[in-house]
Amino acid sequence: MFGYAGAAGIAGAAGVVAGRATASPTDARVDGGVIGQTHSPYGTHQAGIFTPKTQVGELVAFDLLPQTDKAALGRLLRAWTGDVVALTEGRPAAGDFAPDMAQPGVSLTALVGLGPRVFDLDGLGARRPAGFQEIPPMQHDRLDQRWTGGDLLVWVSADDATSVAHAVRRFVTDAAPFATRRWTQRGSWRPVDAAGAPVTGRNLFGQVDGSANPTGEDLAAAVVSSDDWLAGGTQLVVRRIEMDLTGWDEAVRDRQEAAVGRRLDTGVPLTGGEEHDDVDLAATRDGVPVIALDAHSRRSHPSQNNGRRMLRRGLNYTHDDWVGGKAVETSGLIFCAFQASIADQFIPVQRMLDQGDALNEWTTAIGSAVFVIPPGFREGGWIGETLLA
Amino acid sequence: MFGYAGAAGIAGAAGVVAGRATASPTDARVDGGVIGQTHSPYGTHQAGIFTPKTQVGELVAFDLLPQTDKAALGRLLRAWTGDVVALTEGRPAAGDFAPDMAQPGVSLTALVGLGPRVFDLDGLGARRPAGFQEIPPMQHDRLDQRWTGGDLLVWVSADDATSVAHAVRRFVTDAAPFATRRWTQRGSWRPVDAAGAPVTGRNLFGQVDGSANPTGEDLAAAVVSSDDWLAGGTQLVVRRIEMDLTGWDEAVRDRQEAAVGRRLDTGVPLTGGEEHDDVDLAATRDGVPVIALDAHSRRSHPSQNNGRRMLRRGLNYTHDDWVGGKAVETSGLIFCAFQASIADQFIPVQRMLDQGDALNEWTTAIGSAVFVIPPGFREGGWIGETLLA
Repeated sequence: MFGYAGAAGIAGAAGVVAGRATASPTDARVDGGVIGQTHSPYGTHQAGIFTPKTQVGELVAFDLLPQTDKAALGRLLRAWTGDVVALTEGRPAAGDFAPDMAQPGVSLTALVGLGPRVFDLDGLGARRPAGFQEIPPMQHDRLDQRWTGGDLLVWVSADDATSVAHAVRRFVTDAAPFATRRWTQRGSWRPVDAAGAPVTGRNLFGQVDGSANPTGEDLAAAVVSSDDWLAGGTQLVVRRIEMDLTGWDEAVRDRQEAAVGRRLDTGVPLTGGEEHDDVDLAATRDGVPVIALDAHSRRSHPSQNNGRRMLRRGLNYTHDDWVGGKAVETSGLIFCAFQASIADQFIPVQRMLDQGDALNEWTTAIGSAVFVIPPGFREGGWIGETLLA
Repeated sequence: MFGYAGAAGIAGAAGVVAGRATASPTDARVDGGVIGQTHSPYGTHQAGIFTPKTQVGELVAFDLLPQTDKAALGRLLRAWTGDVVALTEGRPAAGDFAPDMAQPGVSLTALVGLGPRVFDLDGLGARRPAGFQEIPPMQHDRLDQRWTGGDLLVWVSADDATSVAHAVRRFVTDAAPFATRRWTQRGSWRPVDAAGAPVTGRNLFGQVDGSANPTGEDLAAAVVSSDDWLAGGTQLVVRRIEMDLTGWDEAVRDRQEAAVGRRLDTGVPLTGGEEHDDVDLAATRDGVPVIALDAHSRRSHPSQNNGRRMLRRGLNYTHDDWVGGKAVETSGLIFCAFQASIADQFIPVQRMLDQGDALNEWTTAIGSAVFVIPPGFREGGWIGETLLA
C-alpha cells in the first residue's frame, strides 16, 4: 500500500474535479502497478503528483531569461507540453536528438511548475494564487543558493536514470530561448518490496517515510486547489534536507523511534496498530505520553495543526561536492510536499516542527523552493493554458 | 539478449574455472532475469562481472591509510566479504545501522578490487599480476585527479539507488580504520526493454553500447585470468569518458552511424545482419569501405588488435559541479572493461582508438583507474584469500 493512497483506499472525493484524469485521488486509477508502467499524460491533474512514486526522480529548476514575457512563457509551456505528452507515452519528442531512447513502460512522468517570479511578469500580477509564497526563514535553516529558488520547475520521474536523463535533456534544450537551468536535484526511492508489491519506502535514516500521508477524500481536500485558474492544480514545496547519518547512527534505536513516534522496522505507531494507522497522542505509559511531546509525528500531526495535511513525495539523495581537492559526500531527503495552499499548510506546520521537532537534531534544510503546479490538461490542451491562454 | 552473453550463447569454457559459481561464463546461470534478482555472492568469479547489468551502479575508490599493511588489508577484506555476502543475499550486514533497508530481490552485487599500490605493500611486491598496470597517457586524455586512481574499489550494482546507497555506506564505514574514500562515480543503465526483456542498452549518445562484447568461450578467454593467485579473477579498467552531447547532436545521423559503424536505432552493423553480428570490415560500396577506416567498430575490432577483446560494462553518468556559483552539468560514460591483462588488452586497443577513432571528436577521458579483481569465493572463504591468507 502506498503512503499516499492504498489501492482500495481511494474514496472518490467526487465533485472536486472532473474530466479525463490520469491516476488521481478522484478516479481510483491507481491499480497497484508501480514499476514498468506507462502513465497517461492527460487528466485533471498533471501526472507525477498522484501517480506512484518511482525509483528515480530528477527536479530541474530554471531561471527565466530577462526577455521572457507572458507570451514567451506560453510558447515555452506549449513546447514543454508536447515533450510531456510524447515522453510520458514513450515516444520521441519533437526534435529529439536521441529518439531511440524514448520508450514506454518506464513509468515516466514529467511535472511542470511555476515559481514566484512568474507572477511578477506583466499581466500576471493579479493571478498569483492565494497562499502561494516563499517559505520564511526558519531557525534550523542553513539555506544554500545552490539548491534554492527557481522560476520554473520540471520534475521527471521514472524507473531508471538513463530514461530520466534523456527526458531532462529535451526540457533543458527546449527551454534554452526562454530559461536557463538553475539547479538540478537527483533522488531515488524504493517504492516496492522484494516481491515487487508497492510499499511506502524508506528514507536514508531507515525510516518508513510517508505512512501518514492523507488518503481518499482527505487527500483531495489537502492537495487539490479549487482557486480560479489553478482549479485542479496544487502548490509544491521542495526542501533539501541534509541528514546527519553519522549522528543518527550514534543514537540508540529507542531514541530514534521516540524522535519519530513510529517503529523503524514497520512504520507502525509506537501506540500500536498497523503502518497506516494514526498515532494515539493521548496514550500514556506510567503517566508519560507514549508519543513524546517533541516526536515528529506529534508535532506534524493534523490535530496539532488545525487539521492541516499535505502529500509528501520525497526522494533520497547522496551527492558529492569537490571541496579543496577532496570529495565531500552529503546525504539526505529531497522533501517534496503538495498542498492546496503553502501559506495555510506547509508554513504553519513547518513552524511547529522548527520550534520543537526531535528530528531537528539530525536534519537541516539546505535548500528551499516553491512552485505552483498548474492543473492537468486534455488532448490538445497545454500546461498553464488556464493562466496564459 | 545481453551484449556480453545471450541466454543461449554461453558455451561453457569448461576447464578455465571450476567450483560453485554464481552467474558466470562457465555455468550458464544467466537465465534471462535482470530486474528483481537475488544473486549468489559465492562462485568462481565475484558477482558483478558476469551478472546482468543493473539500472544503478556506484563505484567507490579508496586510498589506503599509511598504517594499513598486508595484515590489516586482510582484515578489511574479510570484513568486506561479510558485507558482500549479507547485502547480496538481502540481509543486514554486521553492525548495519539501517538493517531494515537490506532486502533481497534488488539485484544487488558488490565487487571488490585492488589498486596498484596494494602491490607496493611489504610482502606483496612479488604478487603483482602480469599485465596489471596504470594506463599510460593518451593524447586525447584530459585526466582529472578527482576521478583518477585509487588503492581499493567497491562497485555496488542494484535495481535502485536507495539500496545502493545503503550498501555503500556499510563498505565505507567498515573501511574507516584502513582506508578513506577517494572518489565515487554514480551511473545508470537501462538493461531491459519496455516489456522487461533483457537488452544491450544505450549510452547517452543513443548508441546501443555493448553489442560486440564477447560471448561463450571468447568471453571466458578474454576476461578470466589463470595467473597464479588471480586464477578465476580478472583486471578492470575504469575510464570516465566525458561526452560532448551538444556536438554529437549537431552531427547528422549518417555521420554519427559512420563514426560507430553500426546503426543507432538497432546496433546492427552498417554491413547488415543482426545486432550481435560482426561488422564486415572487407565490405565496400562503390569501392569505399562500408565500415569507415576511422569507425570505432573497426579501430577496436579484434582483427585489428591481434584478437584482443574485453568485456565492457559501462554506466551512463550525469553529474553537476558547482563552479563560480553556477551548476555545470557534464555527461558521459563510466567506461568499465574487464580483461585478463590490461597490458595485453586494454592498452594496445586504446592506443589504436586514441590514434584514429572517429568518436574522439566527441569523447574525452577525464578519469582513469585500474584494479585487480580477485577471484570469487566459497562459503566461509573471503575475497583476496589467495593473495593474503
